[in-house]
Amino acid sequence: MRTHIVYAHPHNGSLNAALRDEAVQTLEALGHNVTVSDLYAMNWKAVADYDDFGPTENEHFMAAAGEAWGKGEIAEDIKAEQAKLLDADCVIFQFPLWWYTVPAILKGWFDRVFTNGFGYGTSRDWPRFGDGVLKGKRAMVVVTTGAAESHLSDRGVNGSIDDLLFPLQHGVLFYPGMQVLPPVVITGAVHRFGESEYADAVKLLRSRLETIAETEPIAYRKQSEDYDEDKRLLPGLEPEGTTGFALHIAR
Amino acid sequence: MRTHIVYAHPHNGSLNAALRDEAVQTLEALGHNVTVSDLYAMNWKAVADYDDFGPTENEHFMAAAGEAWGKGEIAEDIKAEQAKLLDADCVIFQFPLWWYTVPAILKGWFDRVFTNGFGYGTSRDWPRFGDGVLKGKRAMVVVTTGAAESHLSDRGVNGSIDDLLFPLQHGVLFYPGMQVLPPVVITGAVHRFGESEYADAVKLLRSRLETIAETEPIAYRKQSEDYDEDKRLLPGLEPEGTTGFALHIAR
Repeated sequence: MRTHIVYAHPHNGSLNAALRDEAVQTLEALGHNVTVSDLYAMNWKAVADYDDFGPTENEHFMAAAGEAWGKGEIAEDIKAEQAKLLDADCVIFQFPLWWYTVPAILKGWFDRVFTNGFGYGTSRDWPRFGDGVLKGKRAMVVVTTGAAESHLSDRGVNGSIDDLLFPLQHGVLFYPGMQVLPPVVITGAVHRFGESEYADAVKLLRSRLETIAETEPIAYRKQSEDYDEDKRLLPGLEPEGTTGFALHIAR
Repeated sequence: MRTHIVYAHPHNGSLNAALRDEAVQTLEALGHNVTVSDLYAMNWKAVADYDDFGPTENEHFMAAAGEAWGKGEIAEDIKAEQAKLLDADCVIFQFPLWWYTVPAILKGWFDRVFTNGFGYGTSRDWPRFGDGVLKGKRAMVVVTTGAAESHLSDRGVNGSIDDLLFPLQHGVLFYPGMQVLPPVVITGAVHRFGESEYADAVKLLRSRLETIAETEPIAYRKQSEDYDEDKRLLPGLEPEGTTGFALHIAR
Protein backbone atom coordinates (compact mmCIF):
# COMPACT_ATOMS: atom_id res chain seq x y z
CA MET A 1 0.00 0.00 0.00
CA ARG A 2 0.98 3.57 -0.61
CA THR A 3 0.14 5.74 2.36
CA HIS A 4 0.44 9.49 2.43
CA ILE A 5 0.43 11.46 5.69
CA VAL A 6 -0.66 15.10 5.74
CA TYR A 7 0.70 16.48 8.99
CA ALA A 8 0.25 19.86 10.66
CA HIS A 9 1.93 20.86 13.91
CA PRO A 10 4.30 23.78 14.54
CA HIS A 11 6.67 22.02 16.96
CA ASN A 12 8.92 19.19 15.84
CA GLY A 13 9.43 18.03 19.43
CA SER A 14 5.70 17.70 20.08
CA LEU A 15 3.52 14.74 20.94
CA ASN A 16 2.16 15.02 17.43
CA ALA A 17 5.63 14.80 15.92
CA ALA A 18 6.44 11.73 18.00
CA LEU A 19 3.21 10.05 16.92
CA ARG A 20 3.90 10.93 13.28
CA ASP A 21 7.31 9.26 13.53
CA GLU A 22 5.73 6.20 15.14
CA ALA A 23 3.22 6.06 12.32
CA VAL A 24 5.89 6.24 9.62
CA GLN A 25 7.93 3.49 11.30
CA THR A 26 4.92 1.27 11.86
CA LEU A 27 3.64 1.64 8.31
CA GLU A 28 7.09 1.04 6.79
CA ALA A 29 7.50 -2.06 8.92
CA LEU A 30 4.17 -3.23 7.51
CA GLY A 31 5.54 -2.78 4.01
CA HIS A 32 3.76 0.46 3.12
CA ASN A 33 5.37 3.00 0.87
CA VAL A 34 5.04 6.10 3.09
CA THR A 35 5.24 9.77 2.15
CA VAL A 36 4.65 12.79 4.40
CA SER A 37 3.54 16.35 3.72
CA ASP A 38 4.76 18.18 6.84
CA LEU A 39 2.93 21.45 6.26
CA TYR A 40 4.85 23.62 8.73
CA ALA A 41 8.20 22.24 7.55
CA MET A 42 7.15 22.87 3.94
CA ASN A 43 6.14 26.43 4.85
CA TRP A 44 2.85 25.60 3.14
CA LYS A 45 0.97 28.64 1.78
CA ALA A 46 -2.26 28.56 3.74
CA VAL A 47 -4.25 31.26 2.00
CA ALA A 48 -6.11 30.53 -1.24
CA ASP A 49 -5.88 33.58 -3.49
CA TYR A 50 -5.42 34.65 -7.11
CA ASP A 51 -1.67 33.99 -6.91
CA ASP A 52 -2.60 30.29 -7.10
CA PHE A 53 -3.76 30.71 -10.71
CA GLY A 54 -2.23 31.65 -14.02
CA PRO A 55 -3.54 34.66 -15.93
CA THR A 56 -7.33 34.66 -15.93
CA GLU A 57 -10.23 36.64 -17.35
CA ASN A 58 -12.43 35.39 -14.53
CA GLU A 59 -12.95 37.84 -11.73
CA HIS A 60 -15.11 35.39 -9.78
CA PHE A 61 -12.75 33.49 -7.49
CA MET A 62 -14.28 30.05 -7.84
CA ALA A 63 -14.55 30.40 -11.61
CA ALA A 64 -10.91 31.54 -11.81
CA ALA A 65 -9.92 28.46 -9.81
CA GLY A 66 -11.83 26.20 -12.16
CA GLU A 67 -10.34 27.85 -15.22
CA ALA A 68 -6.81 27.53 -13.82
CA TRP A 69 -7.29 23.88 -13.00
CA GLY A 70 -8.75 23.15 -16.41
CA LYS A 71 -5.83 24.82 -18.17
CA GLY A 72 -3.24 23.22 -15.89
CA GLU A 73 -2.22 26.70 -14.75
CA ILE A 74 -2.44 26.15 -11.05
CA ALA A 75 0.39 26.65 -8.55
CA GLU A 76 3.04 23.94 -8.58
CA ASP A 77 2.74 23.26 -4.85
CA ILE A 78 -0.94 22.47 -5.34
CA LYS A 79 -0.24 20.17 -8.29
CA ALA A 80 2.37 18.32 -6.25
CA GLU A 81 -0.09 17.65 -3.43
CA GLN A 82 -2.79 16.54 -5.85
CA ALA A 83 -0.31 14.08 -7.39
CA LYS A 84 0.51 12.65 -3.94
CA LEU A 85 -3.19 12.09 -3.30
CA LEU A 86 -3.77 10.42 -6.65
CA ASP A 87 -0.79 8.19 -6.01
CA ALA A 88 -1.91 7.05 -2.55
CA ASP A 89 -4.15 4.17 -1.51
CA CYS A 90 -4.60 5.65 1.93
CA VAL A 91 -4.24 9.16 3.32
CA ILE A 92 -3.77 10.01 7.00
CA PHE A 93 -4.54 13.52 8.26
CA GLN A 94 -2.78 14.22 11.55
CA PHE A 95 -3.21 17.43 13.54
CA PRO A 96 -4.02 18.90 16.95
CA LEU A 97 -7.65 19.98 17.33
CA TRP A 98 -7.56 23.79 17.38
CA TRP A 99 -10.88 25.50 17.97
CA TYR A 100 -12.73 22.27 17.24
CA THR A 101 -11.29 21.78 13.79
CA VAL A 102 -7.98 21.70 11.90
CA PRO A 103 -5.24 24.36 12.26
CA ALA A 104 -5.40 27.08 9.59
CA ILE A 105 -2.42 25.69 7.70
CA LEU A 106 -4.30 22.43 7.13
CA LYS A 107 -7.56 24.22 6.31
CA GLY A 108 -5.59 26.08 3.69
CA TRP A 109 -4.25 22.80 2.34
CA PHE A 110 -7.85 21.69 1.73
CA ASP A 111 -8.93 25.10 0.39
CA ARG A 112 -6.10 25.08 -2.15
CA VAL A 113 -5.53 21.39 -3.03
CA PHE A 114 -9.21 20.38 -3.23
CA THR A 115 -9.72 23.08 -5.83
CA ASN A 116 -12.65 23.61 -8.23
CA GLY A 117 -12.43 20.92 -10.92
CA PHE A 118 -10.35 18.57 -8.78
CA GLY A 119 -11.82 18.28 -5.29
CA TYR A 120 -15.23 19.67 -6.10
CA GLY A 121 -17.36 20.93 -8.93
CA THR A 122 -20.28 23.29 -9.16
CA SER A 123 -22.50 21.43 -11.62
CA ARG A 124 -25.65 19.79 -10.31
CA ASP A 125 -24.53 16.35 -11.47
CA TRP A 126 -20.97 16.58 -10.13
CA PRO A 127 -20.17 13.25 -8.43
CA ARG A 128 -19.92 13.99 -4.74
CA PHE A 129 -20.42 12.44 -1.30
CA GLY A 130 -19.18 8.97 -2.04
CA ASP A 131 -17.99 9.51 -5.60
CA GLY A 132 -15.30 11.78 -6.98
CA VAL A 133 -11.64 12.05 -7.86
CA LEU A 134 -10.45 10.22 -4.72
CA LYS A 135 -13.07 7.46 -4.84
CA GLY A 136 -12.05 4.27 -3.12
CA LYS A 137 -9.02 5.68 -1.32
CA ARG A 138 -8.99 5.30 2.41
CA ALA A 139 -8.74 8.31 4.74
CA MET A 140 -8.08 8.36 8.47
CA VAL A 141 -7.91 11.29 10.87
CA VAL A 142 -5.39 11.16 13.73
CA VAL A 143 -6.17 13.98 16.12
CA THR A 144 -4.91 15.09 19.52
CA THR A 145 -7.08 17.19 21.81
CA GLY A 146 -6.32 19.26 24.86
CA ALA A 147 -9.79 18.49 26.14
CA ALA A 148 -10.43 15.40 28.22
CA GLU A 149 -12.43 12.53 26.78
CA SER A 150 -15.57 13.33 28.78
CA HIS A 151 -15.68 16.88 27.37
CA LEU A 152 -15.88 15.37 23.89
CA SER A 153 -18.27 12.57 24.80
CA ASP A 154 -21.91 12.23 23.76
CA ARG A 155 -23.03 14.74 26.43
CA GLY A 156 -19.75 16.65 26.69
CA VAL A 157 -19.85 20.45 26.59
CA ASN A 158 -17.62 20.63 23.52
CA GLY A 159 -19.98 18.51 21.46
CA SER A 160 -19.14 14.90 20.66
CA ILE A 161 -15.91 14.41 18.77
CA ASP A 162 -17.76 12.45 16.07
CA ASP A 163 -20.05 15.39 15.41
CA LEU A 164 -17.18 17.89 15.57
CA LEU A 165 -15.27 15.89 12.97
CA PHE A 166 -18.28 15.45 10.66
CA PRO A 167 -17.69 18.60 8.57
CA LEU A 168 -14.13 17.39 7.93
CA GLN A 169 -14.68 13.67 7.60
CA HIS A 170 -17.93 13.82 5.65
CA GLY A 171 -17.82 17.29 4.12
CA VAL A 172 -14.18 17.29 2.99
CA LEU A 173 -12.97 13.67 2.81
CA PHE A 174 -16.10 11.74 1.83
CA TYR A 175 -17.15 14.51 -0.59
CA PRO A 176 -14.54 13.57 -3.24
CA GLY A 177 -15.13 9.88 -2.62
CA MET A 178 -12.74 8.80 0.11
CA GLN A 179 -13.73 5.97 2.43
CA VAL A 180 -13.31 7.47 5.89
CA LEU A 181 -12.19 5.18 8.70
CA PRO A 182 -13.14 5.92 12.30
CA PRO A 183 -10.68 8.50 13.65
CA VAL A 184 -7.82 7.92 16.09
CA VAL A 185 -8.57 10.40 18.88
CA ILE A 186 -5.97 11.05 21.58
CA THR A 187 -7.53 13.17 24.30
CA GLY A 188 -6.08 15.06 27.26
CA ALA A 189 -2.90 15.88 25.38
CA VAL A 190 -2.22 19.01 27.43
CA HIS A 191 -2.57 18.05 31.05
CA ARG A 192 -1.91 14.45 31.67
CA PHE A 193 0.57 13.13 29.15
CA GLY A 194 3.19 11.03 30.88
CA GLU A 195 5.05 7.93 29.71
CA SER A 196 2.15 5.63 30.37
CA GLU A 197 -0.33 7.81 28.44
CA TYR A 198 2.13 8.04 25.59
CA ALA A 199 2.53 4.27 25.53
CA ASP A 200 -1.25 3.89 25.39
CA ALA A 201 -1.48 6.37 22.52
CA VAL A 202 1.21 4.55 20.55
CA LYS A 203 -0.51 1.24 21.16
CA LEU A 204 -3.81 2.61 19.90
CA LEU A 205 -2.23 4.23 16.87
CA ARG A 206 -0.27 1.10 15.93
CA SER A 207 -3.29 -1.15 16.22
CA ARG A 208 -5.24 1.15 13.91
CA LEU A 209 -2.40 1.32 11.40
CA GLU A 210 -1.98 -2.45 11.40
CA THR A 211 -5.65 -2.84 10.43
CA ILE A 212 -5.91 0.16 8.13
CA ALA A 213 -6.50 -1.93 5.01
CA GLU A 214 -9.45 -3.85 6.41
CA THR A 215 -11.09 -1.52 8.96
CA GLU A 216 -14.72 -0.88 8.10
CA PRO A 217 -15.23 2.74 6.97
CA ILE A 218 -17.86 4.99 8.53
CA ALA A 219 -21.07 4.18 6.67
CA TYR A 220 -21.76 7.64 5.27
CA ARG A 221 -24.67 7.56 2.87
CA LYS A 222 -23.94 8.04 -0.82
CA GLN A 223 -25.57 11.06 -2.41
CA SER A 224 -26.28 9.00 -5.51
CA GLU A 225 -28.30 6.44 -3.56
CA ASP A 226 -30.00 7.87 -0.50
CA TYR A 227 -30.97 11.45 -1.43
CA ASP A 228 -33.66 13.03 -3.57
CA GLU A 229 -33.30 15.60 -6.36
CA ASP A 230 -33.01 18.39 -3.79
CA LYS A 231 -30.24 16.45 -2.04
CA ARG A 232 -32.41 15.70 0.96
CA LEU A 233 -32.28 12.30 2.63
CA LEU A 234 -35.07 10.07 1.33
CA PRO A 235 -37.77 9.46 3.93
CA GLY A 236 -37.82 6.36 6.09
CA LEU A 237 -34.16 5.33 5.80
CA GLU A 238 -33.16 6.20 9.35
CA PRO A 239 -34.23 4.77 12.69
CA GLU A 240 -37.12 6.79 14.06
CA GLY A 241 -36.06 9.87 15.99
CA THR A 242 -32.65 10.22 14.37
CA THR A 243 -31.60 13.84 13.92
CA GLY A 244 -28.47 15.86 13.19
CA PHE A 245 -25.40 14.48 11.47
CA ALA A 246 -26.37 10.95 12.50
CA LEU A 247 -28.96 11.04 9.70
CA HIS A 248 -26.15 10.73 7.17
CA ILE A 249 -24.70 7.51 8.53
CA ALA A 250 -26.38 4.21 7.67
CA ARG A 251 -26.91 2.03 10.75
CA MET B 1 -22.98 50.68 19.50
CA ARG B 2 -19.53 49.80 18.34
CA THR B 3 -19.64 47.07 15.74
CA HIS B 4 -16.59 45.35 14.32
CA ILE B 5 -16.73 43.29 11.11
CA VAL B 6 -14.19 40.53 10.49
CA TYR B 7 -14.37 39.87 6.78
CA ALA B 8 -12.69 37.22 4.62
CA HIS B 9 -13.08 37.02 0.85
CA PRO B 10 -10.34 37.18 -1.81
CA HIS B 11 -12.28 39.21 -4.40
CA ASN B 12 -13.25 42.81 -3.81
CA GLY B 13 -15.89 42.68 -6.54
CA SER B 14 -17.64 39.68 -5.01
CA LEU B 15 -21.12 39.22 -3.62
CA ASN B 16 -19.48 39.10 -0.20
CA ALA B 17 -17.79 42.46 -0.75
CA ALA B 18 -21.07 44.02 -1.84
CA LEU B 19 -22.84 42.67 1.23
CA ARG B 20 -20.03 43.91 3.46
CA ASP B 21 -20.44 47.40 2.03
CA GLU B 22 -24.20 47.23 2.53
CA ALA B 23 -23.61 46.20 6.13
CA VAL B 24 -21.23 49.09 6.81
CA GLN B 25 -23.65 51.60 5.30
CA THR B 26 -26.65 50.17 7.13
CA LEU B 27 -24.90 50.10 10.48
CA GLU B 28 -23.51 53.62 10.08
CA ALA B 29 -26.97 54.89 9.17
CA LEU B 30 -28.18 53.29 12.40
CA GLY B 31 -25.56 55.25 14.31
CA HIS B 32 -23.09 52.43 14.92
CA ASN B 33 -19.40 53.12 15.05
CA VAL B 34 -18.19 50.54 12.48
CA THR B 35 -14.72 49.10 11.95
CA VAL B 36 -13.69 46.36 9.52
CA SER B 37 -10.84 43.85 9.50
CA ASP B 38 -10.64 42.89 5.82
CA LEU B 39 -8.31 39.93 6.20
CA TYR B 40 -7.28 39.54 2.56
CA ALA B 41 -6.72 43.29 2.17
CA MET B 42 -4.65 43.27 5.38
CA ASN B 43 -2.60 40.34 4.07
CA TRP B 44 -3.40 38.69 7.39
CA LYS B 45 -0.86 36.08 8.49
CA ALA B 46 -2.94 32.92 8.67
CA VAL B 47 -0.51 30.49 10.22
CA ALA B 48 0.03 30.42 13.99
CA ASP B 49 3.70 29.74 14.67
CA TYR B 50 6.58 30.69 16.96
CA ASP B 51 7.10 33.96 15.06
CA ASP B 52 3.99 35.19 16.87
CA PHE B 53 5.84 35.19 20.18
CA GLY B 54 8.80 36.97 21.70
CA PRO B 55 11.79 34.96 22.95
CA THR B 56 10.61 31.95 24.94
CA GLU B 57 12.02 29.09 26.96
CA ASN B 58 8.88 27.09 26.27
CA GLU B 59 9.20 24.52 23.53
CA HIS B 60 5.57 23.46 23.91
CA PHE B 61 3.60 25.59 21.45
CA MET B 62 0.58 26.26 23.62
CA ALA B 63 2.74 27.06 26.63
CA ALA B 64 4.86 29.42 24.55
CA ALA B 65 1.68 31.17 23.40
CA GLY B 66 0.50 31.56 26.99
CA GLU B 67 3.88 32.87 28.11
CA ALA B 68 3.99 35.40 25.26
CA TRP B 69 0.52 36.65 26.02
CA GLY B 70 1.27 36.95 29.71
CA LYS B 71 4.42 38.98 29.05
CA GLY B 72 2.76 41.12 26.38
CA GLU B 73 5.25 39.76 23.86
CA ILE B 74 2.80 38.71 21.23
CA ALA B 75 2.79 39.91 17.61
CA GLU B 76 1.46 43.42 17.11
CA ASP B 77 -1.13 42.37 14.51
CA ILE B 78 -2.64 40.00 17.08
CA LYS B 79 -2.71 42.69 19.78
CA ALA B 80 -4.43 45.07 17.38
CA GLU B 81 -7.21 42.57 16.65
CA GLN B 82 -7.65 41.77 20.34
CA ALA B 83 -8.04 45.49 21.02
CA LYS B 84 -10.72 45.80 18.34
CA LEU B 85 -12.65 42.94 19.93
CA LEU B 86 -12.39 44.40 23.41
CA ASP B 87 -13.59 47.73 22.06
CA ALA B 88 -16.64 46.32 20.28
CA ASP B 89 -20.16 45.70 21.53
CA CYS B 90 -20.93 43.50 18.57
CA VAL B 91 -18.75 41.51 16.16
CA ILE B 92 -19.86 40.29 12.74
CA PHE B 93 -17.97 37.47 11.03
CA GLN B 94 -18.59 37.46 7.29
CA PHE B 95 -17.21 34.83 4.92
CA PRO B 96 -18.06 32.34 2.17
CA LEU B 97 -18.52 28.78 3.43
CA TRP B 98 -15.50 26.87 2.12
CA TRP B 99 -15.49 23.16 2.85
CA TYR B 100 -18.23 23.58 5.42
CA THR B 101 -16.36 26.08 7.57
CA VAL B 102 -14.41 29.34 7.36
CA PRO B 103 -11.65 30.03 4.80
CA ALA B 104 -8.15 29.34 6.13
CA ILE B 105 -7.34 33.03 6.52
CA LEU B 106 -10.22 33.41 8.98
CA LYS B 107 -9.39 30.16 10.75
CA GLY B 108 -5.91 31.57 11.23
CA TRP B 109 -7.39 34.75 12.63
CA PHE B 110 -9.08 32.68 15.34
CA ASP B 111 -6.01 30.48 15.89
CA ARG B 112 -3.82 33.54 16.42
CA VAL B 113 -6.11 36.17 17.98
CA PHE B 114 -7.94 33.84 20.39
CA THR B 115 -4.60 32.86 21.87
CA ASN B 116 -3.85 31.02 25.11
CA GLY B 117 -4.50 33.43 27.98
CA PHE B 118 -6.84 35.64 25.96
CA GLY B 119 -9.35 33.52 24.06
CA TYR B 120 -8.89 30.34 26.04
CA GLY B 121 -7.06 28.89 28.98
CA THR B 122 -5.97 25.43 29.94
CA SER B 123 -6.83 25.40 33.63
CA ARG B 124 -9.79 23.32 34.75
CA ASP B 125 -11.58 26.34 36.17
CA TRP B 126 -11.01 28.64 33.20
CA PRO B 127 -14.29 30.47 32.49
CA ARG B 128 -15.55 29.12 29.20
CA PHE B 129 -18.74 28.44 27.24
CA GLY B 130 -20.74 31.45 28.28
CA ASP B 131 -18.07 33.23 30.31
CA GLY B 132 -14.72 34.63 29.26
CA VAL B 133 -12.92 37.70 27.97
CA LEU B 134 -15.64 38.59 25.45
CA LYS B 135 -18.57 37.97 27.77
CA GLY B 136 -21.70 39.88 26.89
CA LYS B 137 -20.58 41.00 23.45
CA ARG B 138 -22.81 40.03 20.58
CA ALA B 139 -21.56 37.94 17.67
CA MET B 140 -23.27 37.25 14.36
CA VAL B 141 -22.14 35.12 11.44
CA VAL B 142 -22.96 36.28 7.90
CA VAL B 143 -22.21 33.44 5.52
CA THR B 144 -22.71 32.78 1.82
CA THR B 145 -22.91 29.25 0.48
CA GLY B 146 -22.62 27.81 -2.99
CA ALA B 147 -24.98 25.04 -1.95
CA ALA B 148 -28.71 25.49 -2.28
CA GLU B 149 -30.86 25.84 0.81
CA SER B 150 -32.23 22.29 0.61
CA HIS B 151 -28.71 20.80 0.66
CA LEU B 152 -28.16 22.54 3.99
CA SER B 153 -31.60 21.80 5.42
CA ASP B 154 -32.46 19.42 8.24
CA ARG B 155 -32.20 16.38 5.92
CA GLY B 156 -29.80 17.91 3.39
CA VAL B 157 -26.76 15.90 2.33
CA ASN B 158 -24.32 18.56 3.53
CA GLY B 159 -25.67 18.42 7.06
CA SER B 160 -27.85 21.21 8.40
CA ILE B 161 -26.27 24.64 8.37
CA ASP B 162 -26.99 25.04 12.08
CA ASP B 163 -25.02 21.90 12.87
CA LEU B 164 -22.22 22.83 10.45
CA LEU B 165 -21.86 26.22 12.15
CA PHE B 166 -21.94 24.79 15.69
CA PRO B 167 -18.17 24.29 16.04
CA LEU B 168 -17.68 27.95 15.07
CA GLN B 169 -20.64 29.55 16.80
CA HIS B 170 -20.50 27.50 20.00
CA GLY B 171 -16.91 26.28 20.06
CA VAL B 172 -15.20 29.53 19.05
CA LEU B 173 -17.61 32.41 19.70
CA PHE B 174 -19.61 31.24 22.72
CA TYR B 175 -16.46 29.74 24.30
CA PRO B 176 -15.02 33.13 25.35
CA GLY B 177 -18.45 34.38 26.33
CA MET B 178 -20.00 35.97 23.27
CA GLN B 179 -23.76 35.90 22.84
CA VAL B 180 -24.25 34.38 19.42
CA LEU B 181 -27.20 35.57 17.34
CA PRO B 182 -28.77 33.29 14.74
CA PRO B 183 -26.67 33.48 11.56
CA VAL B 184 -27.51 35.27 8.33
CA VAL B 185 -27.23 32.52 5.72
CA ILE B 186 -27.32 33.38 2.03
CA THR B 187 -27.53 30.19 0.00
CA GLY B 188 -27.13 29.41 -3.69
CA ALA B 189 -24.51 32.11 -4.12
CA VAL B 190 -22.88 30.38 -7.08
CA HIS B 191 -25.66 29.45 -9.46
CA ARG B 192 -28.64 31.63 -9.14
CA PHE B 193 -27.61 35.08 -8.03
CA GLY B 194 -29.34 37.71 -10.10
CA GLU B 195 -30.63 41.16 -9.17
CA SER B 196 -33.70 39.84 -7.43
CA GLU B 197 -31.74 37.36 -5.31
CA TYR B 198 -29.30 40.11 -4.42
CA ALA B 199 -32.14 42.40 -3.39
CA ASP B 200 -33.54 39.63 -1.18
CA ALA B 201 -30.14 39.08 0.42
CA VAL B 202 -29.71 42.77 1.16
CA LYS B 203 -33.21 42.94 2.62
CA LEU B 204 -32.49 40.00 4.90
CA LEU B 205 -29.12 41.38 5.96
CA ARG B 206 -30.52 44.86 6.66
CA SER B 207 -33.39 43.52 8.73
CA ARG B 208 -30.96 41.52 10.85
CA LEU B 209 -28.63 44.48 11.30
CA GLU B 210 -31.50 46.76 12.29
CA THR B 211 -32.43 44.35 15.08
CA ILE B 212 -28.93 43.33 16.09
CA ALA B 213 -29.15 44.94 19.53
CA GLU B 214 -32.32 43.13 20.56
CA THR B 215 -32.30 39.82 18.67
CA GLU B 216 -32.47 36.87 21.04
CA PRO B 217 -29.15 34.96 21.06
CA ILE B 218 -28.99 31.21 20.48
CA ALA B 219 -29.66 29.67 23.90
CA TYR B 220 -26.39 27.77 24.25
CA ARG B 221 -26.13 26.27 27.71
CA LYS B 222 -23.58 27.77 30.10
CA GLN B 223 -20.84 25.42 31.24
CA SER B 224 -21.08 26.90 34.73
CA GLU B 225 -24.76 25.99 35.05
CA ASP B 226 -25.75 22.92 33.05
CA TYR B 227 -22.72 20.58 33.17
CA ASP B 228 -21.18 18.33 35.76
CA GLU B 229 -17.57 18.15 36.96
CA ASP B 230 -16.60 16.13 33.90
CA LYS B 231 -18.21 18.79 31.69
CA ARG B 232 -21.05 16.49 30.69
CA LEU B 233 -24.58 17.83 30.37
CA LEU B 234 -26.53 17.18 33.56
CA PRO B 235 -29.21 14.54 33.10
CA GLY B 236 -32.81 15.42 32.40
CA LEU B 237 -32.35 18.95 31.05
CA GLU B 238 -33.20 18.16 27.45
CA PRO B 239 -36.41 17.00 25.80
CA GLU B 240 -36.43 13.22 25.60
CA GLY B 241 -34.68 11.87 22.53
CA THR B 242 -32.48 14.92 21.93
CA THR B 243 -29.05 14.00 20.58
CA GLY B 244 -26.09 15.67 18.90
CA PHE B 245 -25.33 19.37 19.08
CA ALA B 246 -28.97 20.11 19.90
CA LEU B 247 -28.23 18.89 23.43
CA HIS B 248 -26.30 22.08 24.08
CA ILE B 249 -29.13 24.48 23.25
CA ALA B 250 -31.82 25.11 25.87
CA ARG B 251 -35.31 24.85 24.40
